[in-house]
Amino acid sequence: MNRAADRLRQALGHAFNDPRLLVEALTHRSAAGPNNERLEFLGDAILNFVIAAELFSVYPQASEGELSRLRASLVKQDALAGLARALALGDCLQLGSGELKSGGFRRDSILADTLEAVFGAVYMDSGLETCRGLILRLYRDLLASLPAADTLKDPKTRLQEYLQARQRAIPVYHILEVTGAAHAQCFTVECSIDNLRTVAVATSRRKAEQEAARRALELMQ
Amino acid sequence: MNRAADRLRQALGHAFNDPRLLVEALTHRSAAGPNNERLEFLGDAILNFVIAAELFSVYPQASEGELSRLRASLVKQDALAGLARALALGDCLQLGSGELKSGGFRRDSILADTLEAVFGAVYMDSGLETCRGLILRLYRDLLASLPAADTLKDPKTRLQEYLQARQRAIPVYHILEVTGAAHAQCFTVECSIDNLRTVAVATSRRKAEQEAARRALELMQ
Repeated sequence: MNRAADRLRQALGHAFNDPRLLVEALTHRSAAGPNNERLEFLGDAILNFVIAAELFSVYPQASEGELSRLRASLVKQDALAGLARALALGDCLQLGSGELKSGGFRRDSILADTLEAVFGAVYMDSGLETCRGLILRLYRDLLASLPAADTLKDPKTRLQEYLQARQRAIPVYHILEVTGAAHAQCFTVECSIDNLRTVAVATSRRKAEQEAARRALELMQ
Repeated sequence: MNRAADRLRQALGHAFNDPRLLVEALTHRSAAGPNNERLEFLGDAILNFVIAAELFSVYPQASEGELSRLRASLVKQDALAGLARALALGDCLQLGSGELKSGGFRRDSILADTLEAVFGAVYMDSGLETCRGLILRLYRDLLASLPAADTLKDPKTRLQEYLQARQRAIPVYHILEVTGAAHAQCFTVECSIDNLRTVAVATSRRKAEQEAARRALELMQ
């Protein structure tokens, strides 16, 4: 454990003021002593916040739905487990004998939970900015491999830019029909560009326009 | 809107460096202009983190499950909507005409989402510590009304303290049976206190002991 833990501390690039926090973070509930479940709860919340704030600033045009999807792809179990493996976290786990025998140190769920607990431990040890720095360092490659910000612009914006770049007329949106009660309306919207027409139906005018724009873009590209 | 917004700024106790952030946070997607969905995504993550960190320190003995349940009770829609009503947030909402007619300014979901967006706006305006201060101020009464920390101690700890306070013998735990394969074991554990015996079955020795302790405590109280 000791040499493995030394390697982990180096890989994390963090010298703990209170090394017991790291021990706790590495202790699965199957082992004796204080285990990492509380730190995992804390670390999960920190990770979700740090990634949310990062995506918010990197993708100023992305919708809430796009931000949610991007975050989910980064904080999901197998992404975390991959980062944990790159740190050789499995070599430092404290597991009970049952988990040890059944190879718990290789299991995605245990590795992911433990990495979250490590984030919680770094936060408790040295505060948010240190923890944020660690998370963004570990996530550097995954963040760099996300889609470019401009591919996340909403369809109406992309359609407009596409047409402007080709000096074509801008699209015009018309509501063709509104049905349903005030609280559950359905909007049918048409997007016209010269002779091209696309139609979409959605629960708001905005959504129907975006969908019609997306279809127009698809037809032209 | 202006007098209502002034009152809201006073209730929040925060002078925005960039007042456009507050306007964006108060703009529902049904209205024209940049709406609050992105800020809500950010604010939701901040709220979950701030409450997690607060509960982590207020309840040093609580399990991950107890912390999760406590947090869920604080960040759920109707709790947030209650806080939003105390701020008269509904008076400041920018809604589209459909939502306005159907009373969107009174709806729990819109109020809760908007308050999260306000948290996101305060974070973008002035950073985490200012936002954390606001959240903890708004949540002061709800946090104060949570169960006392010692009622959340785990059953084994509570049982031990109960017996010590009465100068009685401490409980003894015995594994009566372990069944199942290495990966899906079932532990049957007995808790003995003088002549009292309780038995519990669970997927780990620890859980079975806690459950047996909980039953013993129930019988004695």
